[in-house]
Amino acid sequence: MPATTAGASEIVATAAATGALVTGLDVAASEGGRLLVDLTCDTRDSRHRREVVAALEAVPGVEVRTVGDATFLAHIGGKLEIAAKAPLRNRDDLSRIYTPGVARVCKAIYDTPAKARQLTIKKNTVAVVTDGTAVLGMGDIGPAAALPVMEGKAVLFKEFGGVDAWPIVLDTKDTEQIIAIVKAIAPAYAGINLEDISAPRCFEIEERLRADLDIPVFHDDQHGTAVVVLAALLNALKVVGKRIEDVRIVVSGVGAAGHAIIRLLAAQGARDIVGYGRTGALHAGDVEGMNSHRRWLAENTNPRGVTGTLKEGLVGADVFIGVSSGDILTGDDIATMGPDAIVFALANPTPEVDPTDAAEHAAIVATGRSDYPNQINNVLAFPGLFRGLLDAEVSVISDEVLRVAAVAIAETIAPEELNPAYIIPGVFDRRVATRVSRAVQEAAHEHQA
Amino acid sequence: MPATTAGASEIVATAAATGALVTGLDVAASEGGRLLVDLTCDTRDSRHRREVVAALEAVPGVEVRTVGDATFLAHIGGKLEIAAKAPLRNRDDLSRIYTPGVARVCKAIYDTPAKARQLTIKKNTVAVVTDGTAVLGMGDIGPAAALPVMEGKAVLFKEFGGVDAWPIVLDTKDTEQIIAIVKAIAPAYAGINLEDISAPRCFEIEERLRADLDIPVFHDDQHGTAVVVLAALLNALKVVGKRIEDVRIVVSGVGAAGHAIIRLLAAQGARDIVGYGRTGALHAGDVEGMNSHRRWLAENTNPRGVTGTLKEGLVGADVFIGVSSGDILTGDDIATMGPDAIVFALANPTPEVDPTDAAEHAAIVATGRSDYPNQINNVLAFPGLFRGLLDAEVSVISDEVLRVAAVAIAETIAPEELNPAYIIPGVFDRRVATRVSRAVQEAAHEHQA
Repeated sequence: MPATTAGASEIVATAAATGALVTGLDVAASEGGRLLVDLTCDTRDSRHRREVVAALEAVPGVEVRTVGDATFLAHIGGKLEIAAKAPLRNRDDLSRIYTPGVARVCKAIYDTPAKARQLTIKKNTVAVVTDGTAVLGMGDIGPAAALPVMEGKAVLFKEFGGVDAWPIVLDTKDTEQIIAIVKAIAPAYAGINLEDISAPRCFEIEERLRADLDIPVFHDDQHGTAVVVLAALLNALKVVGKRIEDVRIVVSGVGAAGHAIIRLLAAQGARDIVGYGRTGALHAGDVEGMNSHRRWLAENTNPRGVTGTLKEGLVGADVFIGVSSGDILTGDDIATMGPDAIVFALANPTPEVDPTDAAEHAAIVATGRSDYPNQINNVLAFPGLFRGLLDAEVSVISDEVLRVAAVAIAETIAPEELNPAYIIPGVFDRRVATRVSRAVQEAAHEHQA
Repeated sequence: MPATTAGASEIVATAAATGALVTGLDVAASEGGRLLVDLTCDTRDSRHRREVVAALEAVPGVEVRTVGDATFLAHIGGKLEIAAKAPLRNRDDLSRIYTPGVARVCKAIYDTPAKARQLTIKKNTVAVVTDGTAVLGMGDIGPAAALPVMEGKAVLFKEFGGVDAWPIVLDTKDTEQIIAIVKAIAPAYAGINLEDISAPRCFEIEERLRADLDIPVFHDDQHGTAVVVLAALLNALKVVGKRIEDVRIVVSGVGAAGHAIIRLLAAQGARDIVGYGRTGALHAGDVEGMNSHRRWLAENTNPRGVTGTLKEGLVGADVFIGVSSGDILTGDDIATMGPDAIVFALANPTPEVDPTDAAEHAAIVATGRSDYPNQINNVLAFPGLFRGLLDAEVSVISDEVLRVAAVAIAETIAPEELNPAYIIPGVFDRRVATRVSRAVQEAAHEHQA
C-alpha cells in the first residue's frame, strides 16, 4: 500500500477505525516523496477486509496496490512436502536406498509379504481419500478444490498423531471405480481414511472396502464425528448427572454422520434415540423405500415408535444432537426440552440453533465452531485413533475400538475439571491423541486375544 | 555378536581374514566373563556376508546372535515421510490451514481451477506409478515388493530435483484399469512418472495417458534411459571423432528401452540404426504379426535392409547399444566391430558383454553398473527433467525436450575434460539437474511460443 508522506499514521488510524487490529506498518520503499508501506492487520472476515481496503482507498493520496491474505499466503505451494528420512550423501548411500542394494529388500518383501510393514513406508502411512463430493459445507466441489482440505487433514495427522497421511483426490464419483481404485492403491498404506464423500455412496464404499481390504478403513465424517460426539455426551451427562441408558436423545440428520452417531451411542448403551430426516422421525412402521441404512435406524432405534416432526419430538427430550442444517430451531424450541437439556448443534458454519439462544434454555451447548465453548472437532479423534490402529497393526476397526476412543477423549478431562463450558478437551490438548492411541491398542489386543 | 573374553581381537582377525573391511568393534554388554560385541564391517555382497558369519561361528566360544545389514537397516520404516511445510502452533494456524479458513481456498480453486497449481501441492508433485511387473532385473514381483524402488526413486527426485514424488504402487496389471486409476488420481499431480511397467502394456498406458491428461507423462524406463544413452553417445562420438549422422548403430533389445533409444537417436540425426530382437534384425521386409511399436522400428530404421543375427550385424558397426540380457556377446564379437568402436552394454546386473573383455577391443565401454567407468544411470535425467517440466508448467513432453535434456547432460562435461573413461557425468554431479532443467524450460518456452 503506497502512501503520501502525510499518510502513514492516517493509514493506521483509518484501518483501526473500521475495527481492524493493526499489528504492523513497515515501510517497503520511499521514492519522490511517496512511501510504499506494508500494513499488517487482523480482520474479522473477508467482508471486513474489503471494508478496510475501501476505507484506505478513500483517503486522499492513498493507493492500495496489493492486498495479501494470511490464509491464502499459508497455502502457496501447498501445505505438504515429501522428505527423505535419511541423507543421500554418497555412492554408498545411493547403493543402499536404490540400485543395486534395494533389490535385496524387494526380494525379501516378495518372499515374505508381511515384511512390507517393516521395510517400506506402509507401516506409518494412511491414504486420505476423497472424490470431493461433500466438502465441508460446500458440497460437490470436485477433487482439485477439495485438495486443500485433504492437505490440511494430512498436516493434522502428522502434527497430532505422527502419522504420514497422503491425499488421494479422485476425479470420479463412480462407486465401483472408487472402490477399485482404493483397493488397487492399498499396498502402500496401513490404513484408509475416507473423507468428504457424499451419502449414500460413502456407506457402500466403506463397507465394501472393509470387506475386501486387510487394513482399517475409516470414514471420518461418519465415525470421527461419532467418536467425538460420544466423548462430549459422556462428559455432558456427568455434568448434569444423568445416565446414557436413561436419557431421551433426538438426532436431527440421518446421513453419514447421524447414522454413525446413532450406532455408536447405541453401542455405549443409549436406549431411547429417535432420528429425524427431512420428513420427520424414522420409525419401524414406515420403512418402505428406505435405503438399508435408514431402514436399520428405523428398525433398531425409536423404541417408543415416535412419529411426527423434529420440533414435536424435541418436547421433553434430554439431548439434542444436530448434524443437519443451520437455523432450523429457535431458543423457544430448546425451551420445550426436559430439564438440564444438552444441545449439540453441529451444522457448520451455521448451527441448527443459535448457540447463545440455546444457552438460555439448555444446561450445556456444544457446536462445531471454534468461536463458542465446547467445540466438537474430529481432530480430537482421527490422529490418535490411527496412531493406535497403525501401531497395533489392526486390520479391522470394530465398534468397540471407536467406543474406547470416545471414552479416552472424555476421560482426558478429570471429573473435578468438568464444567458446562468444558465437556471436551481443546484441539491443542496433546494428551488426547496419546490416550486415544493407547486405548485403541489395548482394545485391539483384547480383540485379537 | 557375543564372545568369550578371549575373543575380541580374534573376531576382528577372523572377519578380516575373509577380506571383510572391519570398521568398528563396540562392546555392547559384558556379563559373567562373556562379552556382547557389535562388529561393523564392509562385505562385498551377501555371499561374502554369509562367509564372515560362518567363519566367526567356527571360532570356539563365539556365538553369532544377530546379523544386521546396512541396506536393510536403511529401509526400516521406509525411506519417505510426509512433512508439514509450516508449523501448526495455535488456533490461528489451525483456522488458516484447516477449517474454517481453508474453505475460502477451496472456493477459489473451484472458481478458478488453474489456481490449484498455486494453492496446493500440485505444482511440485509427481506420482511415481508402477504395477510392479518389470522391477529392476527381477521382473513381476508385484506392487508391495516394488515399493522400496519407488520410494528410492522419490528420494532421488527430491535430492537431485527438489521434486516431491509419491509412490503409487498398483495391485492390478490390467491396462484399462491402470489408465483409469492414473487419470482419476491426476488432479493432485503436475506430472506422472511411470516406472517398471512391463512392455508392451507400458506403451499403450503411456500413449493413452498422454492423450487424455493435461500434465506430462513420462515412462522412465523408456525415455529416461534414452536420454542418458544419447547424452553418453554424443560425448563418446566426440572422443572418437565421429558424427552421429555417419555411424552404424546396432541396438540389441527392442522392448521399452530399446524402442525409446532408437527413436531418440533418430531425432538427434542418427541414420543407420538396426534393432535386434530375439529373432534377429528388425527390417521392413518382415513386419507380419509385429505389434505397432516393432513395426514402426522395422519401417523407420535399418535403411540397408540388414537381416540375420546380432553377431552378424555387429561386424563393422561403430556403436553397440545393449538393453537386452547378460552375456550374449564375447570380446571376440566386439573385435569384429569397426575401428574405435563404442560399446554400451547396459543389461543389469550382468552386461551383454564382459566390460573388461569389451575394453580390449572397443575404444569406449559404458555399462549400467556403478563399479565400472561410464555408468549410464537414469538419475542423471529424470530429476532435472521433471524440475524443468514442473517449473515451465508443461503439459506435454516432446521429443525435442528429451533431446535437449540429453544434450545438456552431455555438455556438462567440457570438451577438454572428455576421456574414454569420462563420457558421462557422475550421478552426484549437482550441475546436471540444474542444466537439464534450464534446457527443458527453454525448449518448452520455444515450443509454446
